[in-house]
Amino acid sequence: MTVRFVVLGCGRIGSMHAAYLHRRVAGAEVVGVFDVVAEAAENVGAELGVPVAADLKAALAIDADAVAICTSTDTHVDVMIAAAEAGRAIFCEKPISLDVTEVDRALAAVEAAGVPLHIGFNRRFDPSHKAVADAVADGSIGDVEVVNITSRDPAPPPIAYIEVSGGIFNDMAIHDFDMARYVTGSEVESVYALGRVRVDPAIGQAGDVDTAVIVLTHENGCLTTIDISRRAVYGYDQRVEAFGSGGMAQSTNHHDANALVATAGGYRQPPLQNFFLERYTASYLDQWEAFVAAVENGTPTPISGADGRAPLVIGMAAKRSMDEGRPVLITEII
Amino acid sequence: MTVRFVVLGCGRIGSMHAAYLHRRVAGAEVVGVFDVVAEAAENVGAELGVPVAADLKAALAIDADAVAICTSTDTHVDVMIAAAEAGRAIFCEKPISLDVTEVDRALAAVEAAGVPLHIGFNRRFDPSHKAVADAVADGSIGDVEVVNITSRDPAPPPIAYIEVSGGIFNDMAIHDFDMARYVTGSEVESVYALGRVRVDPAIGQAGDVDTAVIVLTHENGCLTTIDISRRAVYGYDQRVEAFGSGGMAQSTNHHDANALVATAGGYRQPPLQNFFLERYTASYLDQWEAFVAAVENGTPTPISGADGRAPLVIGMAAKRSMDEGRPVLITEII
Amino acid sequence: MTVRFVVLGCGRIGSMHAAYLHRRVAGAEVVGVFDVVAEAAENVGAELGVPVAADLKAALAIDADAVAICTSTDTHVDVMIAAAEAGRAIFCEKPISLDVTEVDRALAAVEAAGVPLHIGFNRRFDPSHKAVADAVADGSIGDVEVVNITSRDPAPPPIAYIEVSGGIFNDMAIHDFDMARYVTGSEVESVYALGRVRVDPAIGQAGDVDTAVIVLTHENGCLTTIDISRRAVYGYDQRVEAFGSGGMAQSTNHHDANALVATAGGYRQPPLQNFFLERYTASYLDQWEAFVAAVENGTPTPISGADGRAPLVIGMAAKRSMDEGRPVLITEII
Amino acid sequence: MTVRFVVLGCGRIGSMHAAYLHRRVAGAEVVGVFDVVAEAAENVGAELGVPVAADLKAALAIDADAVAICTSTDTHVDVMIAAAEAGRAIFCEKPISLDVTEVDRALAAVEAAGVPLHIGFNRRFDPSHKAVADAVADGSIGDVEVVNITSRDPAPPPIAYIEVSGGIFNDMAIHDFDMARYVTGSEVESVYALGRVRVDPAIGQAGDVDTAVIVLTHENGCLTTIDISRRAVYGYDQRVEAFGSGGMAQSTNHHDANALVATAGGYRQPPLQNFFLERYTASYLDQWEAFVAAVENGTPTPISGADGRAPLVIGMAAKRSMDEGRPVLITEII
Repeated sequence: MTVRFVVLGCGRIGSMHAAYLHRRVAGAEVVGVFDVVAEAAENVGAELGVPVAADLKAALAIDADAVAICTSTDTHVDVMIAAAEAGRAIFCEKPISLDVTEVDRALAAVEAAGVPLHIGFNRRFDPSHKAVADAVADGSIGDVEVVNITSRDPAPPPIAYIEVSGGIFNDMAIHDFDMARYVTGSEVESVYALGRVRVDPAIGQAGDVDTAVIVLTHENGCLTTIDISRRAVYGYDQRVEAFGSGGMAQSTNHHDANALVATAGGYRQPPLQNFFLERYTASYLDQWEAFVAAVENGTPTPISGADGRAPLVIGMAAKRSMDEGRPVLITEII
Repeated sequence: MTVRFVVLGCGRIGSMHAAYLHRRVAGAEVVGVFDVVAEAAENVGAELGVPVAADLKAALAIDADAVAICTSTDTHVDVMIAAAEAGRAIFCEKPISLDVTEVDRALAAVEAAGVPLHIGFNRRFDPSHKAVADAVADGSIGDVEVVNITSRDPAPPPIAYIEVSGGIFNDMAIHDFDMARYVTGSEVESVYALGRVRVDPAIGQAGDVDTAVIVLTHENGCLTTIDISRRAVYGYDQRVEAFGSGGMAQSTNHHDANALVATAGGYRQPPLQNFFLERYTASYLDQWEAFVAAVENGTPTPISGADGRAPLVIGMAAKRSMDEGRPVLITEII
Repeated sequence: MTVRFVVLGCGRIGSMHAAYLHRRVAGAEVVGVFDVVAEAAENVGAELGVPVAADLKAALAIDADAVAICTSTDTHVDVMIAAAEAGRAIFCEKPISLDVTEVDRALAAVEAAGVPLHIGFNRRFDPSHKAVADAVADGSIGDVEVVNITSRDPAPPPIAYIEVSGGIFNDMAIHDFDMARYVTGSEVESVYALGRVRVDPAIGQAGDVDTAVIVLTHENGCLTTIDISRRAVYGYDQRVEAFGSGGMAQSTNHHDANALVATAGGYRQPPLQNFFLERYTASYLDQWEAFVAAVENGTPTPISGADGRAPLVIGMAAKRSMDEGRPVLITEII
Repeated sequence: MTVRFVVLGCGRIGSMHAAYLHRRVAGAEVVGVFDVVAEAAENVGAELGVPVAADLKAALAIDADAVAICTSTDTHVDVMIAAAEAGRAIFCEKPISLDVTEVDRALAAVEAAGVPLHIGFNRRFDPSHKAVADAVADGSIGDVEVVNITSRDPAPPPIAYIEVSGGIFNDMAIHDFDMARYVTGSEVESVYALGRVRVDPAIGQAGDVDTAVIVLTHENGCLTTIDISRRAVYGYDQRVEAFGSGGMAQSTNHHDANALVATAGGYRQPPLQNFFLERYTASYLDQWEAFVAAVENGTPTPISGADGRAPLVIGMAAKRSMDEGRPVLITEII
C-alpha cells in the first residue's frame, strides 16, 4: 500500500516535507499540493511533477489518504477541522495553535471524525535524542531525576517573524517542553522561567525575549532545566541530558565535518551544523516513516493531539512565570 | 624565601594539604602540625618528619609565616581569629562558617590584623574550569549570557556528616556558587532553588535534600543554572559551561583512563575519576603555589574573605527559596 | 541547464546513483537506465519513472549528455569506449579495470573522443576526509610527512565476490591508495605490503588475504601507512590522518547516533555506521554535484582517468610486494 | 616493610625517580644518592635530606635493599653488575645498553646473583595504554590482528644528544617496540623500517633520521605499524591501538586541560601535554609501586631483563632494514 498525501502549505518546511514524502519515504507519495501563495505551490508541483490544487477545498477533494498541514500557524485549526471532516489522516506541524481553546476545538473535530492525527515534534525521532529517551525508558539510567536541555538557534529570525511567533516560549521552547515530556515520560507540574534580551534590542521592543532559562518540575519528581537562545555563533546547539539513579545519558552535537586539525595553538573542530534542515534531516525522514506506518497499520500515531496541546500549556505557564516572577503551576493555566 | 606553614587540622583534607605543602610545593614547608585528635596530628607529623604541637596555642607559637586552617568548620572562626592575632598569613578551607555573623567577626579580625587571607575554593585553580573562566574574562566568548554548572558527587557522605553539614546548599553547592561568581565575574542578585530527596530517604529524615536545581541571576544579566546530586554512579561529574554573544566555553570530565574499547555492542570508555582527591589534585597544588606566591610577594591572595562570604549568603538564599517556593533576592538575606 | 544521464548498470551502486541523480542532485536528471539483467533495470526504471533501454546500443542512443558506468568491472572498458564514441561525458565507477593495459585502451579512447571522464573515488568528497586533504593543501599542517589510513569493512563479502574481486589490494585498498595520493598531493614511489588471512580461511583458499598493512613512499618524501581489514565488528571504520611540520589533521568516524550512556561500568557510545551506503552518502551527492558542474561548465572533472589508473598500479605493486616479501618500486610495474 | 633505595644517577630522570620514591611511593624510601657529577647528587641529597655517596662503591656499601640505575646508558652494564654483586634488587632505566653483547653480560651477572631486575619501560604502566593491553589480554577484542602505534615527541633533543643516542630506533622507538610486545603479548619476527630527515638537517648530518615508519610481524600473526617523529608542534602525541577479531581498543591523548571553546570559527581544545614528565607521571608512580611490591613479596618483577633485551634487538633489525631497504628477520640479528 502507498499512503497518498496532499501537502497543504508549500513554504520552507512544507516544500521540504513534500520532497521527502515524494522521494525519500518508502510507501508514501504526494498526489497534490496547495498554498495560498499560488506560486509557492506551483514551484513544488513542478519540481515533483504533482498536481496543484487551486484552493483548500480542491486540495481536500483530491483522492488521498492523508494531509500534511504545513500552512501558517494561525490557519492550522481551520485546516485541520476541514481535513478531519474530509476523512484524511492528519500530520500537522507544531504548534497546533497559540490559543489553547482553538487547540481544543481542533482536537474535538479530529476526535469526532475518528481520523489519525500526528503533531510534528520531529526531534523525538532524532537518533541522538531518541537514544537519551530510550535510556530512560528502558531503565539503563535508573529512575530519572534531572534533565538538562540546551537549545540554541544559530541566529534570530526576522523581527517580523518574532512579532507573530507567539513568543520565545511557544515558538522556540515548545520543542524543548515536548522533549522534557518525551524524555522523562512524565507530565509537567510547575514552571519557573527567566527571560532576557541579549541578542537584539528589537526583539525586546517587539515584546519578546531572546535568551531564557526555564525550570520544570514533573509528576515523577524529576527536575528539568532548559536554556534557550536565539543566537549561538558556533552553530545550532541541540543537547539533551538525562541523569538518574543508575547513570546518565546525553545527546551530543553534529559538526560540519567529523574532523580535527591540531597545530601549536591547539586542536580545532569545525562549527556545528548550521540549523534544523541539516541537523534534523534524519528525524524528519524517520518521523514520516513512523506516521506512514501508523496510517498503514491503523495503529496509534507516535505523537498525539494531547502531546501537541501539553507543550503549549507549559509555554503559557512559562510566559506567566516570567511576567510575574514566580513559579507557576500548570493547573493555574487550564 | 620559603614560606613556613603550620597545618591546623590533620583530617582527610588537612593531611592532604600538609603532604602537598611539604613535598610538592616549591617555596613551602611545613614546620608544625596540630589536631585536637592527637593521633591524627602525630601520624602526619611522623609521616612528614615535622613537630607536633600539643594545642592550638603551641601551634601558633611555632615560628612560622602562615597557617592552613583545616579544622572542622565550626572551629574555623575562632582559629582564624587566633591566627590573625598571631600575625600569620591564613589559608582557610571553605566554608569560613555556616553563620554569616561569625564570618563577619572572623573577617573583621583578619582586617584588623592586616594579615593575608585566602579561602580554599580550589576549583578555581582546576585547569579545565579555569579555561572557561578565562574564555569569559578575555572576551573569547563575548558577553556571558548563560552559565550551566553540573556538580555531582559519586556517593553521599554518612548521615552523621549530613546532619552537621549545614545542608546541601552550603556544604556542596557552595563550590558551585563560588564558580558562578568566578566564571561570570559578576555578583548574584537572586536565587531560585528546588530540592528533592532521591538518593536516600535518610537524608530527607535528616532535614536535607540530595538532589537540587538552582537558578541564579547576576548583576551583569547572566543567568546561571546549577544542578547537583549526592550520587552519580559513573563517577565525580564536574562540568562548567559558559555561553555568550561570541561563543561557548566548556570544561569536560576526567576519566579513569584516556582509552576506549569498541566491540559489536559499541564504544566504551572508563567511568569518571572517583572523587575530588583524584579529580582536583592539580587545583590543590596550583592553589598552594598561588597562595605561597602572594605571601612571598605581598600581593593580594587570589580568593579573598569577601569571596568566602558571598557563596554562603547565596546558599542561605537558596535554602530560603526552596523552603518558601519562590525566588529570593540576595538583599533579603543580609 | 540540466545534465541528462543514462545510468548503465542497475545493481546496488547503480540504483543508488540513479536515485541520487534523479532526485537529489540539482541540475541532473536520469533519462534512461540499462542493465544486462533486464529486471534490475526495470525495477529502477519503474521506481524513478524513466525509460529502460533494451541493450547498451539503445542506451547510448538515448538523447543524453552523460553516462554513469556502474556495470560490472570487467565490462567497464568496453562500455567506456562505446560511451566515448557516442560523445557522452563519462562517470565511471572504480576501478576502470583490473588490467592496466585495458585501462590504457579505455583512456586512449576517451582522449580521442575528447569527452569528460571522472572516476568515482567518492571518498575524496567526504567532508571529513576532505578536511584532512584541505589542511595539507592549504598549509595548515605545514609539509606533510606521515599519513595514516585505517580502512576496515564491517564484514567480508561473499566468497564468490572475493574470487572475482581482483584481490584485496585492487578491490578494497584501491580507495586508500587514491586517498594517499589525494591527501599527500604526491605520487607514490614504492610499496611494501604484508597480508594475512585472519577473518575467514575460505578467503585464503580463494587466493586472497583479508587483513593487510601497506607502507607507501611518496615523491615528496611523505610516508603513508595503510591498514585494512575485511571485518570490524564495531562498524565501518574509516579514518585518515596527516601529520606534518605544522601539525596534524584527522578525520574521525561516524556513530549510529551522537549519544552516550554513562553507568557504573563506564561510558558507552553506539557502534559506527554500518557501511558505505550510510557513511558516504554526503560524498556521493557532493561528487555528483562536482561532476555535473564540470560538465555544465566545461571545466576539468575532479578525478581524471590518470587518477583512476594510478591506484591500480599501486595495487599491483602491493600484490607483488606481498608475494615477493620485499618493497616494490612503482617503476617496476609499468 | 620499607624498601630502601639508593638512587644511582641524579640527572633529570634520576632526580625525578628519587623524589617520587622518597615522597610519593608508599613503602619506599631513599637512603642514599650518587652521581659522577657531585653537584647533581648533592642537590638531590639536600632536597630530600638523604646522604650522598662519594663514589659508586660507597653508594653500594650503603645499607639498602635496592638500587635505581639512572646513570648514563653507557655505564648501565658495569653499574648493574656491581649492584648485582652487592645483592641489591635492581631497577634500571632503559635501555640496558646499546650493545647486545653487553646486555647479555649484565643479565648473566644478575642471573648469577639471583637478584630481582626490572627494566624501566614505564609506558606499560600508563593507565591508558594499559587499558589497551588489558583489552587484548582479557579477550575483549578477540584475537589481536593489527596494532598501530603513534609516538611523536614535541621537539628534538640537542644534536649532542642525538650523536650519542644510539639512533632513533634504539633511543626513541625502543619504547614502541616494547609496547608492541606488551600489547600483542607476542614476540617480533621481522622488521621493515623507513626513515627520513624532515625535522632538522643536522640530525641527518649526525647520521640519524628524525621521522620513521616501522612495520613489525609477530609470532601470533599480528602486524604492527609504528610511526615516530622527533617533532609534533601540538604536543607529545602518544597513541596505541589494537584491532582484533572482536573489536578495537585505543588509548587517546592528554590535553593541557579538558576544556573547549567554541566560536564562529569552530571548536578549540588546548594542545597536548608537553612531554613525558607530565604525560607519564602516573606511569612512573605505578611502576614504582609494582617494583616495590615485587621486591617486598619476592615475586617476579613486571618487566624482566629479557624484556629489556628484546626491544634492543628489534631496534637493531630496524636500523639494518632501513639501511638495506628490505625487511629483516630478528633471527638475522642474533
